Amino acid sequence: MNAVIYGVGTSFFGKQTETDLRVLAWKAILEALADAGLDSVDAAYVGTAYSELGTAQQILSALGITEVPILTLENASASGTTAFHEARWAIESGRYERVLVVGVEHMTSKFAEAVRPAASDPEGRSGMAMPALYAMAAQRYIATSLATPKQLAMVAVKNLGNALWNPRTERKGSYSIEEILTSRMIADPLTRLQCCSITDGAGAVVLGPPRANRRDIVIRGSALRSGKLWDYRSEHVWGFEIVRDTARDAFEEAGIEATDSDVFEVHDAFTIGEIVATEALGLAELGAGGRLVEAGQTAISGAYPVNPSGGLLARGHPIGATGVAQVYEIVTQLRGEAGDRQVRDCRIGVVETMGGGVSGVDGNGCVITVLEKA
Amino acid sequence: MNAVIYGVGTSFFGKQTETDLRVLAWKAILEALADAGLDSVDAAYVGTAYSELGTAQQILSALGITEVPILTLENASASGTTAFHEARWAIESGRYERVLVVGVEHMTSKFAEAVRPAASDPEGRSGMAMPALYAMAAQRYIATSLATPKQLAMVAVKNLGNALWNPRTERKGSYSIEEILTSRMIADPLTRLQCCSITDGAGAVVLGPPRANRRDIVIRGSALRSGKLWDYRSEHVWGFEIVRDTARDAFEEAGIEATDSDVFEVHDAFTIGEIVATEALGLAELGAGGRLVEAGQTAISGAYPVNPSGGLLARGHPIGATGVAQVYEIVTQLRGEAGDRQVRDCRIGVVETMGGGVSGVDGNGCVITVLEKA
Repeated sequence: MNAVIYGVGTSFFGKQTETDLRVLAWKAILEALADAGLDSVDAAYVGTAYSELGTAQQILSALGITEVPILTLENASASGTTAFHEARWAIESGRYERVLVVGVEHMTSKFAEAVRPAASDPEGRSGMAMPALYAMAAQRYIATSLATPKQLAMVAVKNLGNALWNPRTERKGSYSIEEILTSRMIADPLTRLQCCSITDGAGAVVLGPPRANRRDIVIRGSALRSGKLWDYRSEHVWGFEIVRDTARDAFEEAGIEATDSDVFEVHDAFTIGEIVATEALGLAELGAGGRLVEAGQTAISGAYPVNPSGGLLARGHPIGATGVAQVYEIVTQLRGEAGDRQVRDCRIGVVETMGGGVSGVDGNGCVITVLEKA
Repeated sequence: MNAVIYGVGTSFFGKQTETDLRVLAWKAILEALADAGLDSVDAAYVGTAYSELGTAQQILSALGITEVPILTLENASASGTTAFHEARWAIESGRYERVLVVGVEHMTSKFAEAVRPAASDPEGRSGMAMPALYAMAAQRYIATSLATPKQLAMVAVKNLGNALWNPRTERKGSYSIEEILTSRMIADPLTRLQCCSITDGAGAVVLGPPRANRRDIVIRGSALRSGKLWDYRSEHVWGFEIVRDTARDAFEEAGIEATDSDVFEVHDAFTIGEIVATEALGLAELGAGGRLVEAGQTAISGAYPVNPSGGLLARGHPIGATGVAQVYEIVTQLRGEAGDRQVRDCRIGVVETMGGGVSGVDGNGCVITVLEKA
């Protein structure tokens, strides 16, 4: 028995400093419940990385969701899809009939100033904030001719362009490659428009066992892995192996290959992330991910549309919310309800979330999910 | 198929300000793995409430536990048993063969000074720190003749006395009722020796499907619930209803009544907590919990031994670690390996953890587990 998605919802994604985190979550949850045609659930799995203790209970009790199991899960950037993955199994093991998944984060209140890793954590010791970690991957790709700076920029051109048709993202625009490359340098070679923003947002999904509803979307497979120590001696850049191995698990369960999927939401926290992800997923050979975007293959009209929502580059990255927003987008696409950003004839979609955590070098987490039209 | 416990381990529980949280976790994990006769696992569920992002990965990667799913769960004081409960289901749904559960917290580094609820959270708005919340329950019990101050003190006399035979707790002693009642007042009527300490500790459990090993302990049932809004108009004191309802779920699954169990570890964060828990579990009628301890029924030699380890009053309450340490104690008792604090002829044991969260008034969480000798 495969769990299915009954309903999805999100808040707007952008800097919403004056909006309480709970308000964002309520918007997402109420939309998802209405979409599912339900007003109560048997359990709630909440993915968040930076919220205070009791946040999940505060959010849910105000909606009358009490006396059921409420769990809070943290898995860095993959917190939202980790909650989703566990909720899927909670349904499939027969424990519950209706499970609510919530991903939420109010990042602007957590990182009002520059993010400075503490000297006490591994990143701090090595001077590596997340942009630096991804920049190292980008540097290596450029140095070993696996990608060009222009190809990196093309990811941002595409995603910020896709977002023009997504009313729920703050950042969007018709940028030229030149504009992307000359935006402020953050961590060489990654410029400002190649890095996701620190934003606020929430997403929600309602899951259950199969029922007679043609809008429901089937979870055909999903996999969760954590990574291992990464350093310069590793065979691949940071993130490649964990995405490759998690994809293998998820695709094997779903009985598909990457190229069988019609639409993808992947973890483009930085432009290099999307290129590495497309290769690790198996859409392109190693070093061919840059050419994939250059050839328009990952555009909404391409053979393998990637991040039609605009991805993290457009939504920003409210940690726990990101993965759930990715699921929202794929569900919306598979239902044919994505409006001007609709991918044609899509039946199967893939979500990939790669979490580094503040201690990226000691381990990371990845969740990959394969969804299909019922 | 019921999941079974292959191995358990803990660190010492007490103020260990100079000891890194990871060292505490490593001690617990290595002991549990050795006890289980394993050196690797398929997944890890880590319960912690106050640890930094990536803590679980840092702990585990140092032990070579990488490339498997690593999840971090938060459910306030019930974080450890919430991880245990989810891990149990991960085994029973056939997802994994060997799952590691870790509970860990370094509280002395988080609460080096007095705990002051933020004005922005519900506790802060109402001036309620956890001792105040429990004190209100104690006040109500005394005011309505459900318990006496002496009976409250007897819980501390018993538990701190039991701990004399537990080499893993810092706080212990042969106290008189007078000494308990005249220790410094924290939140009237709860004196210092009736409140658990802020300490550091870790626990670990290894779970898997049944195998041929007579030391393995069967998880006969477990249940997880969250609570609802509590205020003075509620029929019972804070915590009563959630423990009663969660116990009903767990006992129904296990096919037992409370009085069928031979040993109990319950959430005595404050003395009143143990009395309320014994009533809510069904060991005594409402208002009879005080007489239960007064009559020696909850002593190690009594009919219903409660907290033979010394409970939270002896171990202190390193949030995520507490529930896993409770499981450790019950497993050790059921195996007959508890030394001088051994409960005679015990076959079934119950763990009860009640988590309030920093926002106790908006919701709480409870996990109750029934364990049995194979």
